[in-house]
Amino acid sequence: MAIPGYSYEFNHTHLLSIEDLSRLDIDHILDLAEEFAEATRAGKRPEAHLKNMTVINLFFENSTRTMSSFEIAAKRLGADVIAMPVAQSSVKKGETLIDTAMTLNAMAPDAIVIRHSASGGVKLLSRKVDCAVINAGDGTHQHPTQGLLDTLTIRRAKGRIEGLKVTICGDILHSRVARSTTMALHLLGAEVTLCGPATLMPSGADSWGAARALNDFDAAIKDADVVMMLRLQLERMNGAYLPSQREYFRNFGLTADRLKLAAPDATVMHPGPMNRGIEIESAIADGERSVITEQVEMGVAVREAVLKLLSGRRA
Amino acid sequence: MAIPGYSYEFNHTHLLSIEDLSRLDIDHILDLAEEFAEATRAGKRPEAHLKNMTVINLFFENSTRTMSSFEIAAKRLGADVIAMPVAQSSVKKGETLIDTAMTLNAMAPDAIVIRHSASGGVKLLSRKVDCAVINAGDGTHQHPTQGLLDTLTIRRAKGRIEGLKVTICGDILHSRVARSTTMALHLLGAEVTLCGPATLMPSGADSWGAARALNDFDAAIKDADVVMMLRLQLERMNGAYLPSQREYFRNFGLTADRLKLAAPDATVMHPGPMNRGIEIESAIADGERSVITEQVEMGVAVREAVLKLLSGRRA
Amino acid sequence: MAIPGYSYEFNHTHLLSIEDLSRLDIDHILDLAEEFAEATRAGKRPEAHLKNMTVINLFFENSTRTMSSFEIAAKRLGADVIAMPVAQSSVKKGETLIDTAMTLNAMAPDAIVIRHSASGGVKLLSRKVDCAVINAGDGTHQHPTQGLLDTLTIRRAKGRIEGLKVTICGDILHSRVARSTTMALHLLGAEVTLCGPATLMPSGADSWGAARALNDFDAAIKDADVVMMLRLQLERMNGAYLPSQREYFRNFGLTADRLKLAAPDATVMHPGPMNRGIEIESAIADGERSVITEQVEMGVAVREAVLKLLSGRRA
Repeated sequence: MAIPGYSYEFNHTHLLSIEDLSRLDIDHILDLAEEFAEATRAGKRPEAHLKNMTVINLFFENSTRTMSSFEIAAKRLGADVIAMPVAQSSVKKGETLIDTAMTLNAMAPDAIVIRHSASGGVKLLSRKVDCAVINAGDGTHQHPTQGLLDTLTIRRAKGRIEGLKVTICGDILHSRVARSTTMALHLLGAEVTLCGPATLMPSGADSWGAARALNDFDAAIKDADVVMMLRLQLERMNGAYLPSQREYFRNFGLTADRLKLAAPDATVMHPGPMNRGIEIESAIADGERSVITEQVEMGVAVREAVLKLLSGRRA
Repeated sequence: MAIPGYSYEFNHTHLLSIEDLSRLDIDHILDLAEEFAEATRAGKRPEAHLKNMTVINLFFENSTRTMSSFEIAAKRLGADVIAMPVAQSSVKKGETLIDTAMTLNAMAPDAIVIRHSASGGVKLLSRKVDCAVINAGDGTHQHPTQGLLDTLTIRRAKGRIEGLKVTICGDILHSRVARSTTMALHLLGAEVTLCGPATLMPSGADSWGAARALNDFDAAIKDADVVMMLRLQLERMNGAYLPSQREYFRNFGLTADRLKLAAPDATVMHPGPMNRGIEIESAIADGERSVITEQVEMGVAVREAVLKLLSGRRA
Repeated sequence: MAIPGYSYEFNHTHLLSIEDLSRLDIDHILDLAEEFAEATRAGKRPEAHLKNMTVINLFFENSTRTMSSFEIAAKRLGADVIAMPVAQSSVKKGETLIDTAMTLNAMAPDAIVIRHSASGGVKLLSRKVDCAVINAGDGTHQHPTQGLLDTLTIRRAKGRIEGLKVTICGDILHSRVARSTTMALHLLGAEVTLCGPATLMPSGADSWGAARALNDFDAAIKDADVVMMLRLQLERMNGAYLPSQREYFRNFGLTADRLKLAAPDATVMHPGPMNRGIEIESAIADGERSVITEQVEMGVAVREAVLKLLSGRRA
């Protein structure tokens, strides 16, 4: 989608939020990611763009899935990867986030991939280091590579993003996935409907670029080209948010019957890990419209693309 | 042991159980493993057969020892290794084993090494992936690389397997090691005697190929060429299985006196980690007949062999 | 500092204690480390001196910081690194330290980096293996790479060690850092003053080579060229050792006012992780005299040097 006569250059130091990206940036990342994905499918290793580089995976929250995806992506590009699940680290010893950042920076990595429980924690850290910082999820704020991999998966399934109707359903309030994916899809021209129980909807979701926010899943799913279900944190179940899993599934679970309300060729997505029988009926998760495992595949590819674009810029 | 005019080919996708292997398969794996072992002793690195390949170590049960052995083996062959001790993973978040398998598969690894607490869990998982799966222990069912490394260690100590008398003593009931090793040794022509307290003996051990199952260690060890002691899970001690550590040692511990009942040159083995003074007298564990550390050494070599034979077959 | 006509050779199998090193050894390590540090600053990878070698990081105590420093150092030199945080390992299963050592040795690593809670535990282990052993901290005994990195950081800041006045303040009693750094600095000709509350001072610190041991920080810091603050283990706070954090900070915290008592260009150090506001005022930690992050940087460089010097000597 490069404009003739317009010379595009990816010009970012970090990847902190979808908000920082232009439409051209996203197209560029997705195009590159798709090349990586096709290479992997063909059994080919990409060039070792990150040879002799060091990537630190700094995860303040457990996520085997996301951490492994980044680790595989970085190693495929030839990087050394230092895994730091910091549940049991200096952080417990009372060290501040800033001190952790400055300590790691002094070890001269080329990129740091960070997941942190505080919204804005990753941005704070990025200001203290000389290398690329990639946000792998900060609080309820952003998870930009998830937004990018969702967008790529949809683009591959539908051939475009522009003009698509996408419905995202679940715990929108606590979801950095919903926020990042909505922003990316909106920027590329999709019409996003957010849906969930009133207690789990944020107040300002229109600022993410969502067209609508509904509490009625039947209305929200109508004619959708893409239906993305969010993971329900089971700890929300026993509190003030929700009455019961059974009632949640009845109102907000994706079933075969409900899917009939969507467009006939609607694509089904879920960022994982799934609670089968709570957010989504098992048969639908495994059905032919599901691209849930392709999301995982595109996750590695998108991370390869982002790592390639951001590494090698150490100040 | 190749039969003249018979063209042998190793033709397996996974390594799930010793039961799946033929005698020729085992000879082939052991021959290759021995080459790797000799190369390491000579300070040489093997060819990077797994260069540009990714091996995932997916351990649902903690085992620093086995996990490290596979990690060292895979890295020696040039693979990237992703360690996944999953005590703290998505599994805790309620994801099913099948979903974990499909997620990992979507990341396109070349081999997955799995340890799981459920007998049959590894086989179930292998059906959902396109890459080689290696069983690193599933419940009380199988631990095939342990069976292979024990067999190789014995072959090196004795020069053969055929016709040897091998006594395995301890908690046979819960031991995937006993099962795998017995099957491998039986297939290669050894006569295996199983021995343990009545409460810790399985009912159908003759189906593993064992010649005898006894409760009297003095009778079981008589004239044995090889005596293999099993680790006693200490948590069995406080339950209905056993009266006390002291009584266990008196009846089923390997002492210098008891070893005199075996063949004069009997070889002593233990899969580790040892409870010194419970299963085995310390002086015997460290004595000249012990090949316990050589078992560890052959463990890495056997895993190199298996990884080489199975990798590069991704569907 | 090589003596003309004197042919120096680094001739150690392990790095267990600063006590084992000569002045020439330390100079040699620091010179090499400085080359590595400058290469990293220039964005260059060093030669892959550890290519095809395996380094095991065996940490019986958690330390993300030190473990990562060794991991980055070893990988920068091309080694395969096996991380073994053993909180959850065979050790828990009752295996002895010696058995762990013999098991790892049988896997044929080229170096083992060990942290252990028992003083002398690393030395014990080193006797049972055929490869290089590097002490990454044993009990309250030694942490030699810390002593070396502190010495290198000072040498870079001051251009020399000989004749410098260095004050180390805090929990001297429990500090392997204080011991190792004091020994290294003394050997190279510095005058070291140790300072801390009476309850946290060892009885025989003069045997480390310290010139003085004081309980009055104002007296101890007077005219110091270097002030090194030690981390206060917060668990000491609630016990018999110390009345309160507030009183500790008043008596032994490094403040701007107190720093005026030191030499005008005094250098400020801390091994990390810091308790800001307890051992050290935040503004001083981040101030222009602080070389705290450079200590981290030199930590990686010193570990590269030590790994290069010790590896490749497997018996």
